[in-house]
Amino acid sequence: MAANSEVLSNKQVILKNYVEGFPKETDMLVKASSISLKVEEGSNAILVKNLYLSCDPYMRARMSFNQDPDFSSFTPGSPIEGFGVAKVVDSGHPEFKKGDLVWGTTGWEEYSLIKNPQGLFKIHHTDVPLSYYTGILGMPGMTAWAGFYEICAPKKGEYIYVSAASGAVGQLVGQFAKLMGCYVVGSAGSREKVELLKNKFGFDDAFNYKEENDLDAALKRCFPEGIDIYFEHVGGKMLDAVLLNMRLHGRIAACGMISQYNLSQPEGVHNLMNVVYKRIRMEGFVVFDYFPQYSRFLDAVLPYIREGKVVYVEDVADGLENAPAALVGLFSGRNVGKQLVVVSRE
Amino acid sequence: MAANSEVLSNKQVILKNYVEGFPKETDMLVKASSISLKVEEGSNAILVKNLYLSCDPYMRARMSFNQDPDFSSFTPGSPIEGFGVAKVVDSGHPEFKKGDLVWGTTGWEEYSLIKNPQGLFKIHHTDVPLSYYTGILGMPGMTAWAGFYEICAPKKGEYIYVSAASGAVGQLVGQFAKLMGCYVVGSAGSREKVELLKNKFGFDDAFNYKEENDLDAALKRCFPEGIDIYFEHVGGKMLDAVLLNMRLHGRIAACGMISQYNLSQPEGVHNLMNVVYKRIRMEGFVVFDYFPQYSRFLDAVLPYIREGKVVYVEDVADGLENAPAALVGLFSGRNVGKQLVVVSRE
Repeated sequence: MAANSEVLSNKQVILKNYVEGFPKETDMLVKASSISLKVEEGSNAILVKNLYLSCDPYMRARMSFNQDPDFSSFTPGSPIEGFGVAKVVDSGHPEFKKGDLVWGTTGWEEYSLIKNPQGLFKIHHTDVPLSYYTGILGMPGMTAWAGFYEICAPKKGEYIYVSAASGAVGQLVGQFAKLMGCYVVGSAGSREKVELLKNKFGFDDAFNYKEENDLDAALKRCFPEGIDIYFEHVGGKMLDAVLLNMRLHGRIAACGMISQYNLSQPEGVHNLMNVVYKRIRMEGFVVFDYFPQYSRFLDAVLPYIREGKVVYVEDVADGLENAPAALVGLFSGRNVGKQLVVVSRE
Repeated sequence: MAANSEVLSNKQVILKNYVEGFPKETDMLVKASSISLKVEEGSNAILVKNLYLSCDPYMRARMSFNQDPDFSSFTPGSPIEGFGVAKVVDSGHPEFKKGDLVWGTTGWEEYSLIKNPQGLFKIHHTDVPLSYYTGILGMPGMTAWAGFYEICAPKKGEYIYVSAASGAVGQLVGQFAKLMGCYVVGSAGSREKVELLKNKFGFDDAFNYKEENDLDAALKRCFPEGIDIYFEHVGGKMLDAVLLNMRLHGRIAACGMISQYNLSQPEGVHNLMNVVYKRIRMEGFVVFDYFPQYSRFLDAVLPYIREGKVVYVEDVADGLENAPAALVGLFSGRNVGKQLVVVSRE
């Protein structure tokens, strides 16, 4: 530790233990630690002040014990991690200097020491809300963009179905598809969200899956001609119903299956023979693979925001005290739009 | 009917009723009808003598009531249909003449009147066994070729797993993969078949899935590095075990799921989240889409046969009386190699 370094209180969101089943607020603990705002002499680390933290479904995998290299477990007793927007307070790394704004993986705490800052993106455009770098201009935005344009290979006039459609990714997939001239239907879990889909994001149609007794019938009503592209967030029963309604040579881009994350045994999917009969391509993807294309993504999406062609709805929780509830709320669909946590506005 | 036409007895395999569950020999009836060996004046039809009939798993779908355009139901009370090799006896079609050998969809009977012969392929190469046009040079051969080269996008050195590997398609996929320099493991349902895989078809390894208590463990033993490509014939529990063992960016070519065809409710597949984590592309295909490439296929595969680079094992049932048992035997794995029926050798 460098001499004369300022030591501050540092509020943190700690994972108590590995989680099984549905995560609860009480699986986490908010408590104060302390931190020096100087990085050690000779280190490559940077010290950041966290501004906005992103609540993302993939974080559920990290709350359980697992050895997946992309989704490695959080460490019980330590702060959880996630994507966030932060400001550099001190830097031992030649590419970062005090005052820089960055987004990338950081800790759920007021200040974080980031030992390997190479994975962070510097934020150069601040004429848009900074919080957007947890969403439309961050990992969820890249997910929607790569999944839709690269995996779905969409064509004008095609029929697109988006589940979890008002969420961080879904609202963008729907708007990208409309910009391309597709017919877009989304589903979500409340009337309020369905209204958003139709009136704010311009989906052609939308339904509340909780009010449908028969998902197959709901999809047949919304897609009498069938579905060309399904952007999969949900898995389980929804995927089974979609498989019954896909068109020939349909595509399913799978970026997650949130309905399955809290089950000890995932639901079975029974209608996979449709993959054969209908010549369906179902392809999984992980957004990290597309991060090298980030600047190309920004060039495409920043103008959409500035020209008002794409809008983005956020659900903002205030303060780290409210962060555990915000994260847990993702899995009951409590959030309306992209869920994030403000740690500090500046 | 033309005057003076010769009328002959015509043995037929009749579907009694739509089938539910596991098909039985007694779902079919072999009985004699009669047929004129002349086509009607002014008709485009051809009259063929059937030589070899192909027993294929997809025929199970046609035994049940369904409205799929590719797999439309057989008509109860009428002969079933399938791919076969036949000789033209009389022709009203300018492109076919008496004595031509053809392969394509025909009836399970001694003689068939084919009203729309446009879909038939003429056989020009008879230096190879004629029966091969029900297998390696017919629909199953095209399935292996299109599925492996087009859908699997294989690369030298990759790890390939083939289920139902001694069957009409599997034995070819394995040999194509070896020719490309891949590491190939197959599974089948008897020791005899496993021996064939290793000693006749040159698979690197093989196992009897019926002797494995734990398919996941069997795959981990055969593929300590994981599976790049899975050629899917089976579905259900096998697919679930494979999903646990796929490598990053793996590909699953799905041409059928024979384990599911006789179930009233298909088994659930539980491990689809691996499609996301491992960025798997799972793609269904139907060989009919590739029929326009048949001559390109022949150019590739005929030399393999002539040069002995690919071998083909057939399981031959003699006579239409034995055809129902041969067809039903596919679903219990009774056949060793490509199952076909000889109606007449000339």
